[in-house]
Amino acid sequence: MSIRLAELAERIGARLAGDGDCVITGVATLIGAQPGGLTFLTNPRYRKHLQATRASAVILKEDDLPFCPTNALVTANPHVAYARAAQVFAPRPAAAAGIHPSAIVADSARIAPDASIGPHCVIGADCVIGAGADIGPGCVLEHGVSIGAGTRLVANVTVYYGCRIGAHGLIHAGAVIGSDGFGFANERGVWVKVPQLGAVVLGDDVEIGATTTIDRGAVEDTVIEDGVKLDNQIQVAHNVRIGAHTVMAAAVAVAGSTVIGKHCAIGGCTGIVGHLEIADGITITGMSMVSKSLKEPGVYSSGTPLERNDQWHKNAVRFKQLDEMARRLKQLEKELEELKKG
Amino acid sequence: MSIRLAELAERIGARLAGDGDCVITGVATLIGAQPGGLTFLTNPRYRKHLQATRASAVILKEDDLPFCPTNALVTANPHVAYARAAQVFAPRPAAAAGIHPSAIVADSARIAPDASIGPHCVIGADCVIGAGADIGPGCVLEHGVSIGAGTRLVANVTVYYGCRIGAHGLIHAGAVIGSDGFGFANERGVWVKVPQLGAVVLGDDVEIGATTTIDRGAVEDTVIEDGVKLDNQIQVAHNVRIGAHTVMAAAVAVAGSTVIGKHCAIGGCTGIVGHLEIADGITITGMSMVSKSLKEPGVYSSGTPLERNDQWHKNAVRFKQLDEMARRLKQLEKELEELKKG
Amino acid sequence: MSIRLAELAERIGARLAGDGDCVITGVATLIGAQPGGLTFLTNPRYRKHLQATRASAVILKEDDLPFCPTNALVTANPHVAYARAAQVFAPRPAAAAGIHPSAIVADSARIAPDASIGPHCVIGADCVIGAGADIGPGCVLEHGVSIGAGTRLVANVTVYYGCRIGAHGLIHAGAVIGSDGFGFANERGVWVKVPQLGAVVLGDDVEIGATTTIDRGAVEDTVIEDGVKLDNQIQVAHNVRIGAHTVMAAAVAVAGSTVIGKHCAIGGCTGIVGHLEIADGITITGMSMVSKSLKEPGVYSSGTPLERNDQWHKNAVRFKQLDEMARRLKQLEKELEELKKG
Repeated sequence: MSIRLAELAERIGARLAGDGDCVITGVATLIGAQPGGLTFLTNPRYRKHLQATRASAVILKEDDLPFCPTNALVTANPHVAYARAAQVFAPRPAAAAGIHPSAIVADSARIAPDASIGPHCVIGADCVIGAGADIGPGCVLEHGVSIGAGTRLVANVTVYYGCRIGAHGLIHAGAVIGSDGFGFANERGVWVKVPQLGAVVLGDDVEIGATTTIDRGAVEDTVIEDGVKLDNQIQVAHNVRIGAHTVMAAAVAVAGSTVIGKHCAIGGCTGIVGHLEIADGITITGMSMVSKSLKEPGVYSSGTPLERNDQWHKNAVRFKQLDEMARRLKQLEKELEELKKG
Repeated sequence: MSIRLAELAERIGARLAGDGDCVITGVATLIGAQPGGLTFLTNPRYRKHLQATRASAVILKEDDLPFCPTNALVTANPHVAYARAAQVFAPRPAAAAGIHPSAIVADSARIAPDASIGPHCVIGADCVIGAGADIGPGCVLEHGVSIGAGTRLVANVTVYYGCRIGAHGLIHAGAVIGSDGFGFANERGVWVKVPQLGAVVLGDDVEIGATTTIDRGAVEDTVIEDGVKLDNQIQVAHNVRIGAHTVMAAAVAVAGSTVIGKHCAIGGCTGIVGHLEIADGITITGMSMVSKSLKEPGVYSSGTPLERNDQWHKNAVRFKQLDEMARRLKQLEKELEELKKG
Repeated sequence: MSIRLAELAERIGARLAGDGDCVITGVATLIGAQPGGLTFLTNPRYRKHLQATRASAVILKEDDLPFCPTNALVTANPHVAYARAAQVFAPRPAAAAGIHPSAIVADSARIAPDASIGPHCVIGADCVIGAGADIGPGCVLEHGVSIGAGTRLVANVTVYYGCRIGAHGLIHAGAVIGSDGFGFANERGVWVKVPQLGAVVLGDDVEIGATTTIDRGAVEDTVIEDGVKLDNQIQVAHNVRIGAHTVMAAAVAVAGSTVIGKHCAIGGCTGIVGHLEIADGITITGMSMVSKSLKEPGVYSSGTPLERNDQWHKNAVRFKQLDEMARRLKQLEKELEELKKG
């Protein structure tokens, strides 16, 4: 794969500064780039690396251009422009259209002629697979699942009955969509299963990470809106709703019926209690414990900082005395006040 | 699927109050119900929704009956009665008995005639599959695995050699039962694998969530007793024992050799250190860190509350000074006492 | 399986003390052992169990020999010697060499004649499978994957294109190697995918736990060095590097581009922020939040201790007042000082 820099500039909508005939053969980091490499700069802090780069071209902002020792593609948003450029070099071959002979496909399933059903897939009754969709090896779709046009399930993905997945999505290996919500009724100490009769609905342009699990709703559906991006190892419980264009880093867990707004950013390992409402545009830093609804936009955090173990032990013990300490502090203030008066 | 309300009342053991000829076509929430819908009320707080419901029938307690604008099914435990009713409407078609032609089944495996072995399953030597068990697509059972009567493995589940799974269980997609416990001996900085020669034993009526992993024992077995319900993304390490009818929400991790009692409830994202004993009937709230044995029943918690990030930063820094603050507080008390005396 | 104690002593390099003709039939715990059983003692604290053991032989240190009521195998490192002995009793039958007829293998893949490709595997174009490697049932390897000699993928493992896995490794069921790193560029609120063009490189003697996920690099590779052992449910983000012989317990998550040294030990459920450097030989206790680089060897921790829920509530509220308490404490000290002066 190689491309003239002038052509690349046109494809990503950037202004060329330098030699348009320069041939780009791949992407690279500022530091690791070799001749032929294309890289990018978003943060002026790294200008020193820019000045030392061996890349053949750098995507950057106007302000950084004077510091660039080589060809440049100038744009207001270098990260987006780089994303577009990298798509040119993405090496994945297109999946072959059609149903692999080893796949087991129900007679009643409707598969678009140019969709790809990979080896050892199992496609249940009444499934609908859209144009250009790519169901990778070992995926299992129970009955009545629909997959939108251009959506790819990478491999070993399981989608339970009746779930509806939008267009242009990407679901990574080992993900599970539509498993039963965790619902049980207690009868004299024994747990009786509450059937989970809702489904999971994923919008368009949704990406779901490897081994991420999204449970079906108890009665109504669990809903992931358009443009949501979920990293790996995430757990989404029944009847959660995640608003459009929200992102979650790895290992987040969201308990049942919580509604998360649009354009939120949830840091990795965060746990969110059930039945909460998180407003649009909220950022939560990693490993936070969220146990109350958040109505005001902003950045939220919880947790305690890392320390040497011996010091941590001493402080952690004191945490258990915190309320008592607060009372003693108040008492001291009172006594001191009296002493000053008297 | 539709059923007369009188018949449903009989099937779930509730008292009919209203029109027994009313036809129920599905379950619903109090708020979302349409005519034909059956719903339930457990918490008197939601009586206002009860009074506005469009459901054709509501399962409720005697005390809530006067507030019900439609037909009712009266019972002491509406949640359990709803669970039973919902089972009537669960849409999953029964799996076809027999071995799918694409499954690879060892000659020495014993499969009950009415069990179902799904497409692309792999069943190892000497496995025993009980009556009515349902091994879904893409499941892999190594040699010597036994699956009890009526137990279902949904899809892409892996069960390692020698594990024994009880009757009437449900194991969700992507779960892994019997992977090696994490055991290594250190020889001059290099880790030597300690073979994990125990197995995993699951009792009857156990439910295991999607992508949950349960490691085999080092020498003796890892044991999950009857009626335990584990949510998704849970990790159970080698030689753990989980007592009967205990439930764990998603993303809990239990380290090796810890023994958890019966009828416990462990909140999501909780981490439990190894070699502990957790008594019967204990509740632990979500995201707790459990590093000591718990002998007294009760509710336990740890963690710090969510705050705005700027405020959190200030408080988190103080956490590292907590022991010092406690000493200074004590010193102040002493000095004040002296001042008051003197 | 049975073996004379004298032969076992020779195989594991321990000194025999007792009856070399004694026949060992399996491994056991000190407490659970029956005649024929072999067990081990590393910690003198358990000498009382040693004295009561019914095992036929015990692997132990010289210092513990006087307390041993039965045959002994004496060695400086009983845990390592036990690991070697247990390997003798490991019951897994060797996988049959060759390609199972149900596997789908690309013509251009090069499979060593004595490697085993299990049922329902899918091996992509240009893959290279080394001597004695064992690709278990349901594994999917995209194109251009290489698997070193003697490495085993247990079942339902997915390896994305171009990843390179070393020799003598073990990858447990449901693990995913080489899924896309979580990289998106924001264009007016909508997330644009940044193609992830690096790969994952695993060294030799690496063990990866069940459902653990390791993302491919954005441009350069994600690297796991020789001898690393990762437990289940771990998430390793793009461009992380984990140094040789480091171990991580279950459910750890490491964010992007963090570099972890050699011979580290990371406790379960720990979250590590991106772009950090963790020096060689560092230990981090379970459930820690690591948000700064660690340059000094040592043991590090964070988190708060478990308490009864009512007490915890009171203390947790005070955490939010911690900075204010510190200021009031300082003010009190000042006032008291003035009072003493005046």
